[in-house]
Amino acid sequence: MKRRDFLQRSALTAGTLAWSSRLDTFVRDLRNASAGEGPWDVVRAAFLIPGDRIYLNVGTLGPQPRVVVDAVVEHTRQVAMTLPPSTDWHALKARVGTLLNGDPEGFVFPRNTTEAMSFIANGLELQSDDEVLTTLHEHVGGLSCWELLAARRGVRLRQLELPVPAGSSEELTDVFRRALTSRTRVISVSHVTFTNGTVMPVADIAAMCRERGIICVVDGAHPPGMVRVDLRAIDADFYASSPHKWLCAPQGTGLLYMRDEWRRRLWPTLASGGWNDTSLGAHRFNHLGTLDESRLAGLDAALRLQEAIGPDVIEARIRELDAMLVARLDDIPGVRIMSPQDPSLGVGLIAFTVAGLESIELQRRLSQANVRTRVVSEYGYGWMRLSPHVYNTEGEIERVAELIAGESGGM
Amino acid sequence: MKRRDFLQRSALTAGTLAWSSRLDTFVRDLRNASAGEGPWDVVRAAFLIPGDRIYLNVGTLGPQPRVVVDAVVEHTRQVAMTLPPSTDWHALKARVGTLLNGDPEGFVFPRNTTEAMSFIANGLELQSDDEVLTTLHEHVGGLSCWELLAARRGVRLRQLELPVPAGSSEELTDVFRRALTSRTRVISVSHVTFTNGTVMPVADIAAMCRERGIICVVDGAHPPGMVRVDLRAIDADFYASSPHKWLCAPQGTGLLYMRDEWRRRLWPTLASGGWNDTSLGAHRFNHLGTLDESRLAGLDAALRLQEAIGPDVIEARIRELDAMLVARLDDIPGVRIMSPQDPSLGVGLIAFTVAGLESIELQRRLSQANVRTRVVSEYGYGWMRLSPHVYNTEGEIERVAELIAGESGGM
Repeated sequence: MKRRDFLQRSALTAGTLAWSSRLDTFVRDLRNASAGEGPWDVVRAAFLIPGDRIYLNVGTLGPQPRVVVDAVVEHTRQVAMTLPPSTDWHALKARVGTLLNGDPEGFVFPRNTTEAMSFIANGLELQSDDEVLTTLHEHVGGLSCWELLAARRGVRLRQLELPVPAGSSEELTDVFRRALTSRTRVISVSHVTFTNGTVMPVADIAAMCRERGIICVVDGAHPPGMVRVDLRAIDADFYASSPHKWLCAPQGTGLLYMRDEWRRRLWPTLASGGWNDTSLGAHRFNHLGTLDESRLAGLDAALRLQEAIGPDVIEARIRELDAMLVARLDDIPGVRIMSPQDPSLGVGLIAFTVAGLESIELQRRLSQANVRTRVVSEYGYGWMRLSPHVYNTEGEIERVAELIAGESGGM
Repeated sequence: MKRRDFLQRSALTAGTLAWSSRLDTFVRDLRNASAGEGPWDVVRAAFLIPGDRIYLNVGTLGPQPRVVVDAVVEHTRQVAMTLPPSTDWHALKARVGTLLNGDPEGFVFPRNTTEAMSFIANGLELQSDDEVLTTLHEHVGGLSCWELLAARRGVRLRQLELPVPAGSSEELTDVFRRALTSRTRVISVSHVTFTNGTVMPVADIAAMCRERGIICVVDGAHPPGMVRVDLRAIDADFYASSPHKWLCAPQGTGLLYMRDEWRRRLWPTLASGGWNDTSLGAHRFNHLGTLDESRLAGLDAALRLQEAIGPDVIEARIRELDAMLVARLDDIPGVRIMSPQDPSLGVGLIAFTVAGLESIELQRRLSQANVRTRVVSEYGYGWMRLSPHVYNTEGEIERVAELIAGESGGM
């Protein structure tokens, strides 16, 4: 073996071993955990969240478990040693494809959903007076790209109101169906709304779009890592996400999935070598110049942790914590839940108001008790939003409900 | 003090202390170093490059010193703890502005030069048949954005030949002057060419552009961290760079500087909240959704290390190593230097050929001796390129020259 090859290879092996052996330990501990809350205590211990801190804002940014931090740190050290590991794009795409049931060739890794959405909007050839339909529940990261096209290219942007809380999937699809015009070229919609966790019927909306030759863009910032996502079943033109939320990948890790027909056709937004080599397909969009590939090493670790716990187990746990939180909130006088309570219509992000108490003031008081939350001030909603995840304990949910009851005067 | 505030602050203080106390130690060791090569031994020890590895490719990616790795790791850990430090944009811009003599308000931090160049090209409103002049010495990261506009919008792109090696600055400016037409809207040129380290007279070219209402774009991927850069004196419309090269900032750290008139006028390429709030000026371009801000913590540490050693001391050392390398190469029969040897015309990137030996084969043989190099295969040049930096020792330069002499049959 060549000396350089040996050095390179030994560095790689050492690098990979440290975080993956930590993952092995985690899996063993998980298997050996006692029934009941035991496995969830093991999961909590895999994170670096301080013991007295209650983090209920994965909706903004997920905390990274130790294995993810380790993968990032080891990659960073190897780059600093001038021995950068090469990213195994093929394996990474295959792993994401398995989790989300998508064709591995369709994945791109931008820095976040915002960038993915700009890649989509900039890459289409929308003309003046072409119409984009979206909702009054889109995040600024999924909306701004269309606002820019409206200002720069004269595209018409219409934001539709959604029922709150939603009563049925049909009702949500109908919001779009009723708004269609002959100019509608794009429907851009969240899969799970950031405002109140409404599950939009994106497969139905995508099917409706396909019948009419409309491009369907899904802002899926939240679902991956939270609920089962089936990209082949949804069959939208584009699906954008942020694995640094519920998948707990490193900060600044995004995802973009595109249908086969777009992989050669969409114009790149950021051009580097190979931008016009359509034989590369969607991978052209991963040619972005020198990248911080430690993000991708961390994403790989995050995906493996997800696999180790089990995506369905994770979804069930999130739904269990959601239900517990909603039940406790429902008992507090003055609390009004703004999230759909039917599990097929709502998940993950629990929005509510407390009569006589501004959400921003409630947030301030909770933060004094070391509870991290989010207020949905967008569009003037003013809702308190809590987003529990697998590292939250049942005790934390109880504690937060008690704190809110105390602040509402409802205890 | 509120409990949360205390927790937040204590985490921040601890985080900042670790890497900055390492920097203090470095500064003390540097002061106490004996004369001659002593300080450079201290500098080398601040890096993680293995002792038997000779890294001569900062032109592609700089190795990160320990303080930079520490800053990244500490930031990453704090984010994982759900206690993300807030980036002090004001201080960071001031620090970069001091190093490069630019208005702090003009700086943007994309992921690399490639992205910065796309921000520029996409943000202008170039029309079909508008002409962009550039050279046959541009890097793919500074060229592709214009190729994209040519393919998508019908912009005319002309790549001009440069003299190799260049004989005078006037001759280089004249290449552009002679090529100007009534359609010329943009001149896009490297400050120091990646091919052979030619120093382009960018201040003269920018002045020529200004007289004629032409937009001057400088791809400055290399100079920051290598030589003294004076953005106010250059006075181009845009200056793009990659601090992850000679400044040894974390991989995936870019820089974009824009003149005052563009800060409100340029269209954003990636749109997030505030994209259309022109009161934010250039900072609109830092609104990119959730970012990996550990890159910026690492950039801050890299800038402080640069200040600690002294930018002029660093430039002088690079020029000293360049001169030593060129002198030794010049002694080897069959070696032909393709870089300008006048220090005002060439710096940092030493390109050459060896008669009867393909550069790619020379690279392969050097890599067997654990020497990392770059071959400039772009445009069919086929040049071997070496880029020494402050962590390289005089002994390493001697050793590499000996290896090349051995391969050339010239010993």
